[in-house]
Amino acid sequence: MTDDLRIAILGTGRIGSMHADLVHTRTEGAVVPVVFDVHPPSAAETAARLGIDTADSAEAVFARSDVDAVAICTSTDTHVDLMVAAAEAGKAIFCEKPISLDVAEVDRGLAAVAAAGVPLQIGFNRRFDAGHAAVREAVLAGSVGDLRQVHITSRDPEPPPISYVKVSGGIFNDMTIHDFDMARFVTGSDVVEVYAKGSVTVDPAIGEAGDYDTVTVLLTHANGVVTTIDNCRQAAYGYDQRVEAFGSQGVATSENHANHHTVVRTSAGSHGAPVPHFFLERYIPSYIAQWRQFVDAVKSGTPTPVTGADGRAPLVIGAAARQSAQENRPVAI
Amino acid sequence: MTDDLRIAILGTGRIGSMHADLVHTRTEGAVVPVVFDVHPPSAAETAARLGIDTADSAEAVFARSDVDAVAICTSTDTHVDLMVAAAEAGKAIFCEKPISLDVAEVDRGLAAVAAAGVPLQIGFNRRFDAGHAAVREAVLAGSVGDLRQVHITSRDPEPPPISYVKVSGGIFNDMTIHDFDMARFVTGSDVVEVYAKGSVTVDPAIGEAGDYDTVTVLLTHANGVVTTIDNCRQAAYGYDQRVEAFGSQGVATSENHANHHTVVRTSAGSHGAPVPHFFLERYIPSYIAQWRQFVDAVKSGTPTPVTGADGRAPLVIGAAARQSAQENRPVAI
Amino acid sequence: MTDDLRIAILGTGRIGSMHADLVHTRTEGAVVPVVFDVHPPSAAETAARLGIDTADSAEAVFARSDVDAVAICTSTDTHVDLMVAAAEAGKAIFCEKPISLDVAEVDRGLAAVAAAGVPLQIGFNRRFDAGHAAVREAVLAGSVGDLRQVHITSRDPEPPPISYVKVSGGIFNDMTIHDFDMARFVTGSDVVEVYAKGSVTVDPAIGEAGDYDTVTVLLTHANGVVTTIDNCRQAAYGYDQRVEAFGSQGVATSENHANHHTVVRTSAGSHGAPVPHFFLERYIPSYIAQWRQFVDAVKSGTPTPVTGADGRAPLVIGAAARQSAQENRPVAI
Amino acid sequence: MTDDLRIAILGTGRIGSMHADLVHTRTEGAVVPVVFDVHPPSAAETAARLGIDTADSAEAVFARSDVDAVAICTSTDTHVDLMVAAAEAGKAIFCEKPISLDVAEVDRGLAAVAAAGVPLQIGFNRRFDAGHAAVREAVLAGSVGDLRQVHITSRDPEPPPISYVKVSGGIFNDMTIHDFDMARFVTGSDVVEVYAKGSVTVDPAIGEAGDYDTVTVLLTHANGVVTTIDNCRQAAYGYDQRVEAFGSQGVATSENHANHHTVVRTSAGSHGAPVPHFFLERYIPSYIAQWRQFVDAVKSGTPTPVTGADGRAPLVIGAAARQSAQENRPVAI
Repeated sequence: MTDDLRIAILGTGRIGSMHADLVHTRTEGAVVPVVFDVHPPSAAETAARLGIDTADSAEAVFARSDVDAVAICTSTDTHVDLMVAAAEAGKAIFCEKPISLDVAEVDRGLAAVAAAGVPLQIGFNRRFDAGHAAVREAVLAGSVGDLRQVHITSRDPEPPPISYVKVSGGIFNDMTIHDFDMARFVTGSDVVEVYAKGSVTVDPAIGEAGDYDTVTVLLTHANGVVTTIDNCRQAAYGYDQRVEAFGSQGVATSENHANHHTVVRTSAGSHGAPVPHFFLERYIPSYIAQWRQFVDAVKSGTPTPVTGADGRAPLVIGAAARQSAQENRPVAI
Repeated sequence: MTDDLRIAILGTGRIGSMHADLVHTRTEGAVVPVVFDVHPPSAAETAARLGIDTADSAEAVFARSDVDAVAICTSTDTHVDLMVAAAEAGKAIFCEKPISLDVAEVDRGLAAVAAAGVPLQIGFNRRFDAGHAAVREAVLAGSVGDLRQVHITSRDPEPPPISYVKVSGGIFNDMTIHDFDMARFVTGSDVVEVYAKGSVTVDPAIGEAGDYDTVTVLLTHANGVVTTIDNCRQAAYGYDQRVEAFGSQGVATSENHANHHTVVRTSAGSHGAPVPHFFLERYIPSYIAQWRQFVDAVKSGTPTPVTGADGRAPLVIGAAARQSAQENRPVAI
Repeated sequence: MTDDLRIAILGTGRIGSMHADLVHTRTEGAVVPVVFDVHPPSAAETAARLGIDTADSAEAVFARSDVDAVAICTSTDTHVDLMVAAAEAGKAIFCEKPISLDVAEVDRGLAAVAAAGVPLQIGFNRRFDAGHAAVREAVLAGSVGDLRQVHITSRDPEPPPISYVKVSGGIFNDMTIHDFDMARFVTGSDVVEVYAKGSVTVDPAIGEAGDYDTVTVLLTHANGVVTTIDNCRQAAYGYDQRVEAFGSQGVATSENHANHHTVVRTSAGSHGAPVPHFFLERYIPSYIAQWRQFVDAVKSGTPTPVTGADGRAPLVIGAAARQSAQENRPVAI
Repeated sequence: MTDDLRIAILGTGRIGSMHADLVHTRTEGAVVPVVFDVHPPSAAETAARLGIDTADSAEAVFARSDVDAVAICTSTDTHVDLMVAAAEAGKAIFCEKPISLDVAEVDRGLAAVAAAGVPLQIGFNRRFDAGHAAVREAVLAGSVGDLRQVHITSRDPEPPPISYVKVSGGIFNDMTIHDFDMARFVTGSDVVEVYAKGSVTVDPAIGEAGDYDTVTVLLTHANGVVTTIDNCRQAAYGYDQRVEAFGSQGVATSENHANHHTVVRTSAGSHGAPVPHFFLERYIPSYIAQWRQFVDAVKSGTPTPVTGADGRAPLVIGAAARQSAQENRPVAI
């Protein structure tokens, strides 16, 4: 339809091609006119599947008048340059997390966005998970009263390839970043101090690469709430994703999903299905909800639900967490 | 204390000795002054454990002025004679179910109780289970609106000895009787028609004794509600006790308990504890609540929560159910 | 891709347009080349959304060489004629339930399919629900031992328009048909006798139309298992879809889903999300799984998972159920 | 019976009178011959209820030959003197937690016990909760593999009177002490470092008394496992008691109980019962199990399940936690 928001996808790797599918076939009011990838066969495959165009360069995308917005899903080190160029071209911007591993670079990107006055949304999809969002809603509605403690459990089924670990910016920037955002989202309060413990319990190669694979983090928020985070790169039972907010009137807990809801009871007890294996099995509805809100915000000219500042804050917390783990002391922000 | 209700226990078999313990040590405002059993060593064992008296005969119990009430926990065929004698002695009466397998005998007992004007409560303990009671409360409070359908699942872990099966009056009088009562309790409506299917799937010896071990019953209530009951003498996973009431505004479901609430999740899925093995593991709190309400009713002179009529009705339903299963047709009551 | 199975959609009403979307965008190895509807604007809308063709007639669809299979999603009274024509055209056939309200017509359709030797699959999507399928798998794997009793709860959130009720063939053919199929699926055994109770508790207009809106059904299977079914056209709490199979070694229960898995606990107790509102919220994954299995079966030449006989049996049970409810007696099949 | 272990109760306040009841009426193989309290009417009330003796002094209890063991349930500051006297009298000892707020005093008591060679068990009842014990069993059985992270949530429904807060030794010695023990129990590993955050969110009077009412603690164990603990003196939804152990093969979670297991579903969602209000509602079975194991250990001459060292360790951790919270730095042990 003529009212569709036209969102070009930059980068058609695992996450970019997923976004292309979700925007084009499952987001009402949005289409993908064109995709680009530095590896042309990747873009071609996505384009063929959806019956859409490919572009020869990012610049060619920015030059198209039938592109209203771009989704930056390329490798992290290219995000800011693309963000600046997109902003200068007047396109609305969706950018995957992290914006950059370098806070100064983040600030350069955000400045360009601010100067151009274009909408920007950062890809913290978990905010749009119906369960996690219900925790936030319970806080906003006052159902749990004044917040006191938050606990977040977030574990991946398996660590990424060691090659990825080496360029990811470390577990705090790559994995815990989602939980830092969740802590800010649920509490509605910035983080003022971090204490973190890191260890290597999954794969010694991760330690040799200078990273941790298992971390426990204690955040102190500006409003006095204390958040604890349990992270691990490997959970044999699947993708563990839970958020709990405790306050003066109650507690709201976003529990894990299950692959199905059949229970078999025998003399040995009850047996149920595993939790979803990883983010594709768990979070597709959250990605769709994220796109719906991006499309709505851009079309209506209202603020996007995850701002540039929301993209910047977790990077600062992550750096402090890393310092805390290395020096075994709380680090103020 | 001088205000304690003094309840003598007649019959100290499995259920009677349990009642003696619960009344004497776990029911505030009640004590057991004396117990009697036709097998004196049985009474002696219970008496020694509790530091109380034994009596040489039921008559000796009725003659004691320090006995305010009696609990009839003897074999079913002796219930009515004891009920009549207790009524004539002016004692308040608690009687285990079934009152008798012979409805005419039941009527003789109830007439004596009415003539004497003594309180009578029948031992349908499941009404006092907190979960099942919450279903009834949801109905009374209007939370589920106008009732439409009820489903009761009731399965024992193992069949009783075949010797017991032969004298129990059959599965409908011995086991389903609790569910007939539950159906009347939850709906607050009498049963006007029964359709029942019976089969032998557990032990052929039960069939040879003229009984079923697996029955499915459909009850039609006076108010139009339809109740279905699933019964089996054997459930490998434990004592299955569930009640569900569906109405115009919602559904209330009393789910099974578990031996504990720890869940272990591995790559094979989630694993939890079994349901409680049998009635001692599941229903002790309901027996205690039953005694508390009996004591309160007798002391305050208010009606007991399970009347003689409540004890009679399931026996009539049970006879109709047996006829229905044998003739494969609905039987009106 | 050249290997894609090309499935034309006949009928683009609510269910047909959903199938068009699911096949074309979410079923790997399948595409929809063309859609047809007796109401051309309906077909045009679906075609535009997916960027595909419309056809002027069903005949035009059958004539296309780029159509490997057809999905019959038109009104029930047209199913058999289309099935016969599709079979004669050599197309693989997917047909929505019920095949027809007239068993003789069903037989005419199935005879044509058999004569042509084309694959046929009936749209009993609930077999492909991961939870219900896990119950069947537990039975097949022996986890619950020899089956004894099955209980199915199936309630819609709201009744359909009274105009639909009048042509639907009645609740047994329109709604319980899914549960008859589920009973056959879970037990793996045909139904030999039916006893049904029907009432009007939701809307008197349904009764005036000669139908029930609330039914309770007891099925006896050839292998002795007894299935009970609770149906209602209206459930205030959402789309209630549960299946339980009890056997000598255990019980497998497919529980309801929830809109999310956040629980809020306050002094008033715990509060969780509603169950999914209706079939679109609950069963989309089952429709996708259904299409995947259809595509796999047609491509590989293996039997389809839901045969013509599976489509016929529930209609016979439904007629017997209606007779049983009207005459208040068990009806043999 | 002559084989009964005869356990005198010293101190008949809330916890002591509960122990008297549980030992005398619900612990097979044990009786309470005599009770003592510095406030004679308190002892008299318990003695009258159970039909047993009172003693005029603790010394009189120690002098009785019909006393095999004593349960020290008096105020904390009297524990060690009684422990020393009981040990010198050759009695087996059960001592409530904390042994003392002064570690030197603890050591004096433990030395006397060691010198006398009498059995000693400390009252960490939560180890005997079936759910928490199942977490430990999952760890011991290897079901969750090598432990990595533990999370304990422990919240009281309401704070104790401010008068108690002032003498309790502070939240770490009074409340978190149970969780320190649980962390040692579940991991099977000593604590080597503590980091704690404390705040006052419930009642300013607690802060004025020099204590916290809300604390979050991060423990590092000798084996590298990290435990986090969430504590609060007030939880509007009841007594929150959960333990979770995560390892290389899975995760074991001891969830909260509920007052019953009935769920009511309406258009507003699902509604369930509150969690148990406090320890009497939740932990009675754990106290009974504790007594059974004490009786078994003393009779059989095997080690008790909670040793003097287990009673001492949490006091050391508690002191370090307090220091950590005050100085905002990790404190090594």
